[in-house]
Amino acid sequence: MNEYFENHRKSINNKLDELLPKSSQKVGNLFSAMRYSMLNGGKRIRPLLCIAAADSISSSNEATVVAASAIEMMHVYSLIHDDLPSMDNDDLRRGIASCHIKYNEATAILAGDALQALAFETLSNIKSLSYENHLKIIKILSNNIGCSGMVKGQALDLDTTYKPSSREELDEMHRCKTGALIEASVLIGAVTTQEMTDSQEFALKNFAQKIGLAFQIKDDVLDVESSTEAMGKLKGSDAHNKKCTYTSILGLDKSKAIASKLYSESIESLSGFDERASELKELAKFIISRAY
Amino acid sequence: MNEYFENHRKSINNKLDELLPKSSQKVGNLFSAMRYSMLNGGKRIRPLLCIAAADSISSSNEATVVAASAIEMMHVYSLIHDDLPSMDNDDLRRGIASCHIKYNEATAILAGDALQALAFETLSNIKSLSYENHLKIIKILSNNIGCSGMVKGQALDLDTTYKPSSREELDEMHRCKTGALIEASVLIGAVTTQEMTDSQEFALKNFAQKIGLAFQIKDDVLDVESSTEAMGKLKGSDAHNKKCTYTSILGLDKSKAIASKLYSESIESLSGFDERASELKELAKFIISRAY
Repeated sequence: MNEYFENHRKSINNKLDELLPKSSQKVGNLFSAMRYSMLNGGKRIRPLLCIAAADSISSSNEATVVAASAIEMMHVYSLIHDDLPSMDNDDLRRGIASCHIKYNEATAILAGDALQALAFETLSNIKSLSYENHLKIIKILSNNIGCSGMVKGQALDLDTTYKPSSREELDEMHRCKTGALIEASVLIGAVTTQEMTDSQEFALKNFAQKIGLAFQIKDDVLDVESSTEAMGKLKGSDAHNKKCTYTSILGLDKSKAIASKLYSESIESLSGFDERASELKELAKFIISRAY
Repeated sequence: MNEYFENHRKSINNKLDELLPKSSQKVGNLFSAMRYSMLNGGKRIRPLLCIAAADSISSSNEATVVAASAIEMMHVYSLIHDDLPSMDNDDLRRGIASCHIKYNEATAILAGDALQALAFETLSNIKSLSYENHLKIIKILSNNIGCSGMVKGQALDLDTTYKPSSREELDEMHRCKTGALIEASVLIGAVTTQEMTDSQEFALKNFAQKIGLAFQIKDDVLDVESSTEAMGKLKGSDAHNKKCTYTSILGLDKSKAIASKLYSESIESLSGFDERASELKELAKFIISRAY
């Protein structure tokens, strides 16, 4: 990715370092575990989507970076819990031991719980937003990560009796599991500019839904095609866990074709935007072409 | 407890029933698990504290009941996670099987995660509060339940290397584990009236801190003295888990004396309040005299 992303990734990492509790405070391993899972070189796609969405409207600002950091906390909490033995039972994450392997299960559960709380605390502490916009970002995030969004997706994914057989059912599961937080990232970024029009909101929502699904399909493809080394997590873990993936239900070629079409549609959604949407489009391209 | 509490307990239970996702929607057992753990006849002490605190200032209203329900969601999420095998490993809660026993570990973790999110979503959807007061309740709750409050307390409680030997260290752990959410309950209730003065806030904070500690000491005493049947959870589970409790460190008699003194001090904190604080005082009395 280009300099724009490198710079913003740095500012997000600095903000996260500032917002997370210092591990010098001794609270068992809680604070260390939170920092370990947060500050290990993730791609930061969601916070970058947040910032690029703000820039597509006008300009990202301090509120955007703080909100982007809260979104990454929410994402990492979900990864920590998803990796637990009773869930996906993954020992490896971002190339290093998962939180519950490095520490223990109880610490991993608590670190996730605390990150969710810290994300909301972080959003509530943002300054310089109007009441309407401040409440809107809290509403968007809470609505998209809970039992009608991210947690619902994980519950469907783990439900062995839930067998999505059609493209529509598979889409619904992944709309929740991955799409909801990606949609929240884009919309929240745009709201922090306080300048988004209704038609821009409609377009960004459409963009986010398309690229969110493409993101998940690409993940499924990579789980089959990429190496464990490149992925930073065990290759083929979906097949091992007998997960219903796009590739297992639709096949590898069809999955790639669908992802490619969704990417094109996501770019089309932004047709009403000017050159300020170039970084957001660049991110969409990265999502679909990434090798890890 | 009297009619005031019975009526408000009903209104809280009705509000929770309304706010929780309907279990007719099939999302594995996620929605069933959330409803199972939420709607099983808990004492509702925290939401009642929230409502009684509002009434001590002026009058509780719809915003108070909604906020009280969000607080109970946060409490129940913490119970579900605390009961997990990797944490306190309790099979029994409120007289029935714990969430992970009734369902499974993954569902219990997700039900807790979803309840935390729903609590914040519920707070964000409250109507008729000023910007300042609306943000204030979200700040209070998020600050008190995370890594400087409730989750910190649980992490300290589980840390086998953390051995509080003094009264002060024990107080700090329990200030986080139990006290923080009780303090949030009282303050949030008062904020929903939009009429709290600074001196009332100071007094209520003091009240909540005293009665919050007394609550935990009473819990420790009951764990030694009460029956499993009355408690609805296994008697002596603290000793079994080698927990550092007030009774194990200070002894039964001294613990009772401290709880009694804290109760008196909590009542004194409210000396500047008129008769509208009578129900709040009644709740404090219940907390210290309850047999379960």
